[in-house]
Amino acid sequence: MAKVCIIMGSDSDLSIMKKSADMLEKFGISYDITIISAHREPDLLVEYMRDAEKNGVKVVIAGAGKAAALPGMCAALCNMPVIGVPIKTSDLGGVDSLYSIVQMPTGVPVATVAINGAANAGILAAKILAVSDEEILRKLKDYTDSQADEVMAKDAKLQQMGAAAYIAQMN
Amino acid sequence: MAKVCIIMGSDSDLSIMKKSADMLEKFGISYDITIISAHREPDLLVEYMRDAEKNGVKVVIAGAGKAAALPGMCAALCNMPVIGVPIKTSDLGGVDSLYSIVQMPTGVPVATVAINGAANAGILAAKILAVSDEEILRKLKDYTDSQADEVMAKDAKLQQMGAAAYIAQMN
Amino acid sequence: MAKVCIIMGSDSDLSIMKKSADMLEKFGISYDITIISAHREPDLLVEYMRDAEKNGVKVVIAGAGKAAALPGMCAALCNMPVIGVPIKTSDLGGVDSLYSIVQMPTGVPVATVAINGAANAGILAAKILAVSDEEILRKLKDYTDSQADEVMAKDAKLQQMGAAAYIAQMN
Amino acid sequence: MAKVCIIMGSDSDLSIMKKSADMLEKFGISYDITIISAHREPDLLVEYMRDAEKNGVKVVIAGAGKAAALPGMCAALCNMPVIGVPIKTSDLGGVDSLYSIVQMPTGVPVATVAINGAANAGILAAKILAVSDEEILRKLKDYTDSQADEVMAKDAKLQQMGAAAYIAQMN
Amino acid sequence: MAKVCIIMGSDSDLSIMKKSADMLEKFGISYDITIISAHREPDLLVEYMRDAEKNGVKVVIAGAGKAAALPGMCAALCNMPVIGVPIKTSDLGGVDSLYSIVQMPTGVPVATVAINGAANAGILAAKILAVSDEEILRKLKDYTDSQADEVMAKDAKLQQMGAAAYIAQMN
Amino acid sequence: MAKVCIIMGSDSDLSIMKKSADMLEKFGISYDITIISAHREPDLLVEYMRDAEKNGVKVVIAGAGKAAALPGMCAALCNMPVIGVPIKTSDLGGVDSLYSIVQMPTGVPVATVAINGAANAGILAAKILAVSDEEILRKLKDYTDSQADEVMAKDAKLQQMGAAAYIAQMN
Amino acid sequence: MAKVCIIMGSDSDLSIMKKSADMLEKFGISYDITIISAHREPDLLVEYMRDAEKNGVKVVIAGAGKAAALPGMCAALCNMPVIGVPIKTSDLGGVDSLYSIVQMPTGVPVATVAINGAANAGILAAKILAVSDEEILRKLKDYTDSQADEVMAKDAKLQQMGAAAYIAQMN
Amino acid sequence: MAKVCIIMGSDSDLSIMKKSADMLEKFGISYDITIISAHREPDLLVEYMRDAEKNGVKVVIAGAGKAAALPGMCAALCNMPVIGVPIKTSDLGGVDSLYSIVQMPTGVPVATVAINGAANAGILAAKILAVSDEEILRKLKDYTDSQADEVMAKDAKLQQMGAAAYIAQMN
Repeated sequence: MAKVCIIMGSDSDLSIMKKSADMLEKFGISYDITIISAHREPDLLVEYMRDAEKNGVKVVIAGAGKAAALPGMCAALCNMPVIGVPIKTSDLGGVDSLYSIVQMPTGVPVATVAINGAANAGILAAKILAVSDEEILRKLKDYTDSQADEVMAKDAKLQQMGAAAYIAQMN
Repeated sequence: MAKVCIIMGSDSDLSIMKKSADMLEKFGISYDITIISAHREPDLLVEYMRDAEKNGVKVVIAGAGKAAALPGMCAALCNMPVIGVPIKTSDLGGVDSLYSIVQMPTGVPVATVAINGAANAGILAAKILAVSDEEILRKLKDYTDSQADEVMAKDAKLQQMGAAAYIAQMN
Repeated sequence: MAKVCIIMGSDSDLSIMKKSADMLEKFGISYDITIISAHREPDLLVEYMRDAEKNGVKVVIAGAGKAAALPGMCAALCNMPVIGVPIKTSDLGGVDSLYSIVQMPTGVPVATVAINGAANAGILAAKILAVSDEEILRKLKDYTDSQADEVMAKDAKLQQMGAAAYIAQMN
Repeated sequence: MAKVCIIMGSDSDLSIMKKSADMLEKFGISYDITIISAHREPDLLVEYMRDAEKNGVKVVIAGAGKAAALPGMCAALCNMPVIGVPIKTSDLGGVDSLYSIVQMPTGVPVATVAINGAANAGILAAKILAVSDEEILRKLKDYTDSQADEVMAKDAKLQQMGAAAYIAQMN
Repeated sequence: MAKVCIIMGSDSDLSIMKKSADMLEKFGISYDITIISAHREPDLLVEYMRDAEKNGVKVVIAGAGKAAALPGMCAALCNMPVIGVPIKTSDLGGVDSLYSIVQMPTGVPVATVAINGAANAGILAAKILAVSDEEILRKLKDYTDSQADEVMAKDAKLQQMGAAAYIAQMN
Repeated sequence: MAKVCIIMGSDSDLSIMKKSADMLEKFGISYDITIISAHREPDLLVEYMRDAEKNGVKVVIAGAGKAAALPGMCAALCNMPVIGVPIKTSDLGGVDSLYSIVQMPTGVPVATVAINGAANAGILAAKILAVSDEEILRKLKDYTDSQADEVMAKDAKLQQMGAAAYIAQMN
Repeated sequence: MAKVCIIMGSDSDLSIMKKSADMLEKFGISYDITIISAHREPDLLVEYMRDAEKNGVKVVIAGAGKAAALPGMCAALCNMPVIGVPIKTSDLGGVDSLYSIVQMPTGVPVATVAINGAANAGILAAKILAVSDEEILRKLKDYTDSQADEVMAKDAKLQQMGAAAYIAQMN
Repeated sequence: MAKVCIIMGSDSDLSIMKKSADMLEKFGISYDITIISAHREPDLLVEYMRDAEKNGVKVVIAGAGKAAALPGMCAALCNMPVIGVPIKTSDLGGVDSLYSIVQMPTGVPVATVAINGAANAGILAAKILAVSDEEILRKLKDYTDSQADEVMAKDAKLQQMGAAAYIAQMN
């Protein structure tokens, strides 16, 4: 089994959750990506999480929307750190998903990221693995540097072009 | 086993959830009342719900607060109607509990009542059983009548005493 | 009269509320579907609900938006279980509908489902009828199994195609 | 019958709703004050509102909390202007009451005032009656003047005493 | 001057506020419709409101969005009933407008209607005038009847066509 | 007249708004502190703001709660920077005050600080005056340094005492 | 260096933040416009803010979205007044940005304007500079007058065309 | 230096944040606990975080309230995983703190726990360290077991005493 499991409750979450996978690939971290619904397949979820723990999975990323029980149930079923991604909803904007994931009771934390923050979930998984993996840590530092470089490049372009021209070329 | 199971995630919910029990007693409906945490005892919950279904439980009442996964997980684990009671929280007033319980995905409904609405959960369980139980239906009608009588008695008192005196004797 | 009444306050709710009807058909449950406005036709609503009770209706599904009084008034006018569907609103996302339906006073519960959760309202009605109807219970179990199968089929496809290809074929 | 009807759903609203009565007395306007629950006494409400209209009531003030259907149902049952007072709730602060009262569908307006704004409901009733009653209009003008005088007196005291002393004598 | 003044803070509110005017026309009530900004033309607003009162205006309808001071300032400047229409906003959905209009301090009520509820503001103005105008009252009753007829016609069509055909012909 | 005007809508805001005054005193800035209600004394407010501008007031601090029109109307009536302090409310926590103050339309900004943030309003006034006043700027720098020193002293105490002892002596 | 610094955390904020620049140009105020991310370039931000203070920048305008730390960190790093612009977000409408900017702790105020209120941030900067600059003050007065004129012109057009024609020509 | 740094912005957060320390002690994990304000001591924070990283700190726990920039700035200044604890606020219940911490931009995740969830922050830190520390993992499993045992013991007591007696002895 891979180091990180990315789980989501529905294939409608896949285009968001793939950003976790993309980020893990950037850091050279192996992962599985799976659709399991806590509410439609509770037994399968129990089995999957127990297998994951037995097979040495290190971090779980779980994305879900609305009454988003998946991340919390994953955290209930294993001792690995579980990262929760609240999926944006069309009616409440995702505040329902956020509250359902972040407001966990004492004993069972879920490391919650922003609404639709699947890319950050991937980075957070990398940070957790980097605690004991120098190679990933080095890649994280490179990524952080590249992030700063990217903003600086944008600012340099803005200083050169001016705001009006910059905006014009964005569209 | 009893006809109705009242489940809650923590004994801190007991003083609220007892109102479900009180209401069921008023209608002569047998019940079990149990503390099981979805997040701290996931295996026990699976076992308990499967047993409940096998033993002929008809309705489940589940109360929980914050990231309240219990009612939804109960609904995922059985085919009986599950009534969810969102418990008021000290920081968000219970809107976190409400969203975590009511915003269920298609396929797994939870019949959600008001924040701290455990008494109404008991009445709703009675209404569900009354669909096929003339005795409970008769008691429900009596209860409804008594509710109206109670308000009428209060209004009669108000008309007699006037508002100022009525308020004075309330304190 | 049919076993379930689906009522809504306006024909603008029909495309959502039809999902309750579709679900009931899947379970072979007879239903009536009607537009009655609590605020524009209060007398008709009283009459309709009294007739429904007399004619042996077992469950009521009521959908309404904004200051959504319909589900609560239905519950006030009969002893059958009433399921409330809060309709999404264009300004407040449906949180107004949700609060107007779920926050009922003691004595008059409404079994509230998610915003626009009309399909779940149909399933909940089936669960309520299944308490005393083995045939519906059997169909509910089949439905639950098919739900799990559907997610498993999606996951199998994801494992075979990979995330990128899966997303590509979704659009 | 009196000119204004003050209705509330529960005697727990009485200490707030009495402020409407106090304000009407200040303007010399006759009123009835009554407890009728839309959800517990729907038939009585229909009867009461029809009687009120027949007996020449001019304005209705209706206060209710949580899923506050009373003001909207009053408006549905008569052609008089209905003023709605959302009662503060212990869990959601009254935003549930506010949405349930103010978000009325086209055709059935409720003139909504602030959460717990029963005094303002009384003043608004007076303003509505003053449209065709010179005596009430004169009293309203006096009241408005006295309101300004009161604030000016407080400011004069503040200028004389200074802020620290003013605060000290408030407690 | 006309009987009712419709005021709004910006011409971007006009397409919503015109619904107040349309409703007043339906009831044969004369009105003025004007753009005055409380924040950009405070002196003009003072002057306009004082003139309105002197010239016998009976009811004011004021629509505004965001930090919507206009309705409250109108209420501060005259003794006529002021109806406030909170305009929907693109970021907060109009909850900012609603709070800015409805949460008035004691002494200065604004009769608040739903977000974008300008049609209801027109009906509410008619109800206020109908307190002393039999002709308008009669038209209100006709309007109420026609509202009920309209819903009944829709339901009749639904019963005849069925839900699927009804939905098909709506688009 | 003084350099800064502190205005509030009600003497119930005084104990909060005095913190603006205390902060201005710390920076040696002269101020007036006054109670004027936008909704109860609109003419007086117009007059006061015009006088303030004529008399060389440099900055206005306006605190108000609920439908808090005062800060915005001050900004409408003068060209000086206006700082708005949203006062906490017992029902909505002050989110009504905040939206009523911060969501101003283009052309009429209010510099809004935190709910009950009157001390920060005083500091912001000092920062504005320090743009052209070296003496105040120097005092601001001293204040900023003292703020940092204070936190460092607390941390030193925590390091010395340990957390348990530190907490014990706080109570 | 210019008198005003406009800083934003990402080039996705540029089309909004350019409105601050446009407003400053209208008042003839020099400005720099820069992209610096508090979270991606913390050291650069420290350096930039220290340079800004040394080089005589008078006012800072900082725009940011979501967990918007930039305005507060700018305020932490200098003694100039900092104006914060909360950027609208696609999931929460910008209420996350607003709370992250306005709810500053005592000692470090941020002068917060409306969500996406960058034009008002420019005007507020001008008002702050006008405290000690007669030329800018004069331009502000002209701008205020032109704002009123603009609304009056719109109203004149409305009076001449009527509402229906006015709306027709808006589209 | 210790393995985990617990940082908070103010000593008013200490009684909550000590729960992180208590939990780390339970798992035998060394920690430092420090008060540093991002807004009052930005330079010290930069220095402290850089030192922490150099000295081999593995996980950071940062608690802050209101416009809670501390956790995000910690994450900006190091490559270790940062856990954020939103502190409850007296006006907005902590939703301001939550949004300020969880809604981080791509590139800089903060692992957010519940409002006032400092105990869970300690457990999450332990889970992160347990990825590469068998000893901590073993203790986590024991803790999880003890959690379940505790709930089971409570339920056993409830079954023995009954709900009324259980509630009586809680007070």
